[in-house]
Amino acid sequence: MHGILLFAHGARDPQWARPFEAIRDRLRARRPEFPVELAFLELMSPSLEEAVATLRGKGVAAITIFPLFMAPGGHIRNDLPRIVEQMRQAHPEVPIAVQRPIGEVPELLDAMAAWILADVD
Amino acid sequence: MHGILLFAHGARDPQWARPFEAIRDRLRARRPEFPVELAFLELMSPSLEEAVATLRGKGVAAITIFPLFMAPGGHIRNDLPRIVEQMRQAHPEVPIAVQRPIGEVPELLDAMAAWILADVD
Repeated sequence: MHGILLFAHGARDPQWARPFEAIRDRLRARRPEFPVELAFLELMSPSLEEAVATLRGKGVAAITIFPLFMAPGGHIRNDLPRIVEQMRQAHPEVPIAVQRPIGEVPELLDAMAAWILADVD
Repeated sequence: MHGILLFAHGARDPQWARPFEAIRDRLRARRPEFPVELAFLELMSPSLEEAVATLRGKGVAAITIFPLFMAPGGHIRNDLPRIVEQMRQAHPEVPIAVQRPIGEVPELLDAMAAWILADVD
């Protein structure tokens, strides 16, 4: 069983998390067989470590982290690899993969461009 | 003629802008008749004001700003409306509309969820 870990930055305003919660809820509705958790770098909980523990508790055999960031700033290039390395040492029996941020996924850039053109057309 | 203004945060690392440049380049390639500019809140140029001046120089009759942010934080809720209000006063003859951030567009959340499921399936 594969666990999906959505990763966002976090903010003080609880409303800020809504888009990420909406993606999580879509995934749970479409494919309830995949455990899905949302985690934050700072200012919101749970942390990545806490969400990995939750997924482990659900018995996942592997985890993929999806950084829901448009661009790969320092949080993705520095903070995330450091945290992932710590988690791999803490959970050596569970492979943890990290996907590209959404701004580096050609299909998603295509979808954004299409949405913009549909709006101005 | 409608001008498209893509709006991103900005960062010190020039590589950070690549996803936004990729969306701009897709729009220009698909529909060269729409003037498209990319602008940043801070740390990168041009600013929103500079990009509006560029679009005005290309003769646009209206402008739509697309905030390429996943979630509506303080930059979208406070900084952007203030800057847009100033620009509307400076260019009263050009209607300036502001679209939702990408994280509030249901079609794009659907596309992100579909991409995640395609990856773990």
